[in-house]
Amino acid sequence: MIKTDILIIGAGPTGLFAVFEAGLLQLKCHLIDALPQAGGQCSEIYPKKPIYDIPGFPEILAGELVDNLMEQIKPFEPGFTLGERAENIETQEDGSFIVTTNKGTKHHAPIVAIAGGLGSFEPRKPLLDNLRKYEDHGIAYMIKDPEIYRDKKVVIAGGGDSALDWSIFLADVASEVTLVHRRKEFRGALDSVEKVQSLKNLGKIRLITPGEVTVLEGEEKLEAVNVRRKTTAVEDVRIAVDHFIPLFGLSPKLGPIADWGLEIEKNAIKVDTFDYQTNVPGIYAIGDVNTYPGKLKLILCGFHEATLMCQSAYQRIFPDKRYVMKYTTVGGIKGFDGSKKEAPKAVVKAID
Amino acid sequence: MIKTDILIIGAGPTGLFAVFEAGLLQLKCHLIDALPQAGGQCSEIYPKKPIYDIPGFPEILAGELVDNLMEQIKPFEPGFTLGERAENIETQEDGSFIVTTNKGTKHHAPIVAIAGGLGSFEPRKPLLDNLRKYEDHGIAYMIKDPEIYRDKKVVIAGGGDSALDWSIFLADVASEVTLVHRRKEFRGALDSVEKVQSLKNLGKIRLITPGEVTVLEGEEKLEAVNVRRKTTAVEDVRIAVDHFIPLFGLSPKLGPIADWGLEIEKNAIKVDTFDYQTNVPGIYAIGDVNTYPGKLKLILCGFHEATLMCQSAYQRIFPDKRYVMKYTTVGGIKGFDGSKKEAPKAVVKAID
Repeated sequence: MIKTDILIIGAGPTGLFAVFEAGLLQLKCHLIDALPQAGGQCSEIYPKKPIYDIPGFPEILAGELVDNLMEQIKPFEPGFTLGERAENIETQEDGSFIVTTNKGTKHHAPIVAIAGGLGSFEPRKPLLDNLRKYEDHGIAYMIKDPEIYRDKKVVIAGGGDSALDWSIFLADVASEVTLVHRRKEFRGALDSVEKVQSLKNLGKIRLITPGEVTVLEGEEKLEAVNVRRKTTAVEDVRIAVDHFIPLFGLSPKLGPIADWGLEIEKNAIKVDTFDYQTNVPGIYAIGDVNTYPGKLKLILCGFHEATLMCQSAYQRIFPDKRYVMKYTTVGGIKGFDGSKKEAPKAVVKAID
Repeated sequence: MIKTDILIIGAGPTGLFAVFEAGLLQLKCHLIDALPQAGGQCSEIYPKKPIYDIPGFPEILAGELVDNLMEQIKPFEPGFTLGERAENIETQEDGSFIVTTNKGTKHHAPIVAIAGGLGSFEPRKPLLDNLRKYEDHGIAYMIKDPEIYRDKKVVIAGGGDSALDWSIFLADVASEVTLVHRRKEFRGALDSVEKVQSLKNLGKIRLITPGEVTVLEGEEKLEAVNVRRKTTAVEDVRIAVDHFIPLFGLSPKLGPIADWGLEIEKNAIKVDTFDYQTNVPGIYAIGDVNTYPGKLKLILCGFHEATLMCQSAYQRIFPDKRYVMKYTTVGGIKGFDGSKKEAPKAVVKAID
């Protein structure tokens, strides 16, 4: 059982910044995210795209923002349960919560802050017989650890940035990379498209377009796929593989959280703007996952919401303590790791 | 008469960021500030101090934050009325406002956003006969343009960072710098104290401590001051001067805004968290100057408030238009100066 003060569901920018604000109040956080890394959409969907409306950054890449936030929260030593989806919540007698993931990991905290963005990102899956049978036995919809593909035979399907970028990456790792797409045209960053073209010309990526995977084969685990090339004549190619990775995009789903007894409106969780608490005391919702009059789904608004949420969480955990806010410029930062940052102190010194 | 869409009173970080959010909605802004430069307290009080709780910056100097915001809003060409205090507001028949400063500059806008921080910073003044007579005729409480002191005789009074830093700066500009302080001990950054010590040793700064200016003299303008040195014996020194600059700190005052008919609570303006509008339709209050249940006086909260305020202002200016928010990552930034920033576009390209 993982124990923490604030259990944050969703490790996007809002969830990450909540760790910082909680840390200022000496509260510890643990984050759960269905994606294999922190950063939410910023890391998974558009890490190399610029954002222009983060205050103080005329321009910042989404991936850089996540890196900065990770550095900013480092002193407060957040815990992470990644690649698992928060599935089930049980309220305890003392008002605290136990949240269990789809893989059975249990987390216990007096406060739950849902920072789930647009929901957990669920991969779009191909319609193929026996698909479930091979999931985690040769088929994956996200790449968590590229090393498992070293010296293996891999088929990737898809026509967007993910399919392009992972084909490029795995061309140097896997023993064989085949990229299958139902059109000849790919949609992505120009340099990615050009790089795949050159790797294909060098024989490092085998390209089958227009085509699609039609049959999966294997006893215990995936052993081969049939790829149907659809030019004027139809041609079937049987490819021996260790891994098949369909990268057809992710679509966000509110998912199991929708059944947690929270008031939902337009696929978002209703909160009070006083502290971004839901209708269930002790459960908060911050960032894109919440809704209230005037709500804007912007990262900078999530930062504000996370900050007010932490104040309220503190009062809930310590009903008798009165917290007096200190500006970081004045009080500095005291990390749980023993680190300390503070503004250079003024001296009082005579001049003779 | 200066005309704009949103007249922002206060050019601190919140007011500056409002320019950006307004710009995304194609609304123009003009800012009034009593201080001689943009940035509010961040520029005037603690430009060289680090802030640790701006999201995405593990550490940023207050002055850097202002520089970044100025760069971020540059495409939206804000206007500035600096060194003047918003004094008077008149509601026009059409619901728009005319705001007049203490120097008589008039501004006309359909929307007024008060981003006044803790208020306008009023200098603490010494108790001296004829003080008012010499204000702007030899006496100033803030340094707006250091060049006016070139080759002049200057007396600075005070014992903090401002007195130290301006003594150092003017030692190279003025023909004569005298620093007067009522104690021997100065309070400031160690290197500033040490620098003044060495300039004093070099004879570039004349130091009179403990001491104070007791008499002002001059016909039309200031011509001399009497400085009383208070050691065991009292000693009076008459110094011929062109300028006397008492730097005894600034204290924030809500000032004339307090009489604008807005609901005030604990020296702050009450707003609705829906859009941070005050009890007077069309007048908003954002940042440290406002109050509402759960309010925290943090820069990052001001950013959020500025953003929601702009949406509401847009609806007020264009009641019949429906604005559909576009993420900057998707829609980019179109500056009023013709500049354009946008994410590199994806291409659709065949791989052969």
